[in-house]
Amino acid sequence: MMSVQYMSYRPELSSTPVELVYRVNAVDETAHASAVSIPAERPLTVHVDGRELITLMTLGAAPEALTLGYLRNQRLVRAVEEIASIHIDWERHAAFVTTRAGIEDIEERTAKRIVTTGCGQGTIFGNLMDELDNIVLPPDARLTQSTLYKIVNTIRTHDSIYAKAGSVHGCGLFSSTGELQYFIEDVGRHNAVDSIAGLMWLNEVSGGNKVFYTTGRLTSEMVIKSAQMGIPFLISRSGTTQMGHKVAQKVNMTLLARCTGKHFLLVTGKERLVYEPELLDGSLRVA
Amino acid sequence: MMSVQYMSYRPELSSTPVELVYRVNAVDETAHASAVSIPAERPLTVHVDGRELITLMTLGAAPEALTLGYLRNQRLVRAVEEIASIHIDWERHAAFVTTRAGIEDIEERTAKRIVTTGCGQGTIFGNLMDELDNIVLPPDARLTQSTLYKIVNTIRTHDSIYAKAGSVHGCGLFSSTGELQYFIEDVGRHNAVDSIAGLMWLNEVSGGNKVFYTTGRLTSEMVIKSAQMGIPFLISRSGTTQMGHKVAQKVNMTLLARCTGKHFLLVTGKERLVYEPELLDGSLRVA
Repeated sequence: MMSVQYMSYRPELSSTPVELVYRVNAVDETAHASAVSIPAERPLTVHVDGRELITLMTLGAAPEALTLGYLRNQRLVRAVEEIASIHIDWERHAAFVTTRAGIEDIEERTAKRIVTTGCGQGTIFGNLMDELDNIVLPPDARLTQSTLYKIVNTIRTHDSIYAKAGSVHGCGLFSSTGELQYFIEDVGRHNAVDSIAGLMWLNEVSGGNKVFYTTGRLTSEMVIKSAQMGIPFLISRSGTTQMGHKVAQKVNMTLLARCTGKHFLLVTGKERLVYEPELLDGSLRVA
Repeated sequence: MMSVQYMSYRPELSSTPVELVYRVNAVDETAHASAVSIPAERPLTVHVDGRELITLMTLGAAPEALTLGYLRNQRLVRAVEEIASIHIDWERHAAFVTTRAGIEDIEERTAKRIVTTGCGQGTIFGNLMDELDNIVLPPDARLTQSTLYKIVNTIRTHDSIYAKAGSVHGCGLFSSTGELQYFIEDVGRHNAVDSIAGLMWLNEVSGGNKVFYTTGRLTSEMVIKSAQMGIPFLISRSGTTQMGHKVAQKVNMTLLARCTGKHFLLVTGKERLVYEPELLDGSLRVA
C-alpha cells in the first residue's frame, strides 16, 4: 500500500517581538506624580505583492497572524495556501505579504468600504453581508452552563496586557469543553479577532466545535467575523446591538452577552446552551 | 453708516428621527426570560454629489451632524459653506450630500486608508498625521480641578441611551467652566466625535475654549480628531495608548485619563490643569 503523507502547509513567517507596554509619567488627583503603564499602539501597513493595501493600528503582539487573519476575514484570500510569506518590518511599520499567485481583482475587491461600529479595525471591504447566506453554523453544537462559567473565569484570571496597562481588547478561542486555545489582545478589538482567525488558519483549526470570547461589544461585524470563522458560540462581557442581534439570528449563532461572574444574557441561538439545574439559583431570579 | 449683517451659514438639512432602542428577548442565568433593551445599529452610506463614499454603522441619533462631521474630520471639506445640503433617507440607508462646488480630487484623497484602533469608525483617509504640524492648541487655556469633577459628574448623571440599553459610546463638548454644550451617543465612538464636530460647524462653535469628554479610550485617532477640532482638553473615563500619548505630547494637548468620581490621571499638557488645594485629599495619596 502507498503511504500518503498529509503535510500541513505553513507560509514563511517572520518573528518580530516588540515592546507591548510603555511607562509614562502621570499625575493623579492628589498631585502625586508616578509612572503608569499604557499599551503600545503602532501603525502596520499591509503590502500585498508590493501593493499597499491598508494601515492597521495595532498593539503589535501578533502581527503575522493579524496580517493573515485580516486578509482572511476581508475575504481577500480564500486559503492559507495562497500565502507564500509574511514578513514584518517594524522599522518601516510594514507587513510584506507575498502570495503564490497574486490576488485576483484586488483593486476592485478593495474598492468598497464599510466602516463599522466596533472597537478598532472596522473597515470591511465588499459586501460581506451577502456571504452570510452561505453560512450554516452547526445546529447540534452545545455549551453547558458550567463550561460557560469556566470560560468566563479563565478570561478573568488570565495573565494579560489589560491587567498591566488597560486600554486593550482581548479575544479567546476555546474548545467546547472550555479549554483555552488562543488568547490575543490588541488596541483594536478587530485586530484581536483577526489575529485569532490567522492562528486558526496557520494551525488548521476549524471553528465548528469552538467558542469565541471577546471583551468587546457584539456589534454587527463582530458577529459577521465569528460567523465567517464558522464558530457557533460568541460570548462577551459587553452587550449587543440591534444589528449584531439581527445577524446572529440570521446565521443562528448563539450569542451570550453581559457574561460576568455567574451572570449572563442568552440572546440568540438559545437551544445550544445547556442549563444545569444545580447552577440555576432561584434566588437570582428577577421577580 | 452702512449696516453689515453677518448671516450665519447653514446647509439645508433633513430631520429624520428614528428608533434608537430596541427590545429583544433574552434568557438569564436562572433560565428566566425577559425583554432587554439594546441600541440600534444601522448602516448609513454617505454619497457626495452622487458618488458613494463610505458606509458608516451608526446608532442614528444625529445622522446629518454625523455626515457633516465625518466630512470635516476626514478633511474632505474645509468649511461648512462648501455644503449645500445633507439629506438622510433611512429607507435607503443613505446620506445624500450636495456640495456647492464639488470636492476637488476626491478620488485621490480617499484612496489611502488607515484603519484605526478606536471603537468605531476608524478609517482615516490620507495622511492626517502630517496636518498635526500645523496645529497649535491654546497654551493659556486652563481647567480647574473642580470643573473637571463637575464635567465627570455631568456625564455620569446625564440621561442616556447607555443607561437604557448599554453598548454605546458617549461624547460631550463642555465649556471651560463645565457647562455641557452637546452630548452625542453612537455605537461607534468615532461617530459620536464626528457628530459633535458637525454640530460645532453648524453652530459656529470653536474648540479653543472647550473641553471634550469621551467614554472611549484615548487612542491616536481620538487625540488627532480632538486636535483637529482645536480642543486643548481631552477627558476620558478610559485609558490611553502609547500613540495617543505621543500625539497628545506633539500637539501639547491636555490628556486626562481614568476620570471616575474624584480620580484621574493627568498624562500630558499638565500645566493647563489647575489643582485646587482644598480638593487635594492627602488620604488618597499613593504611598
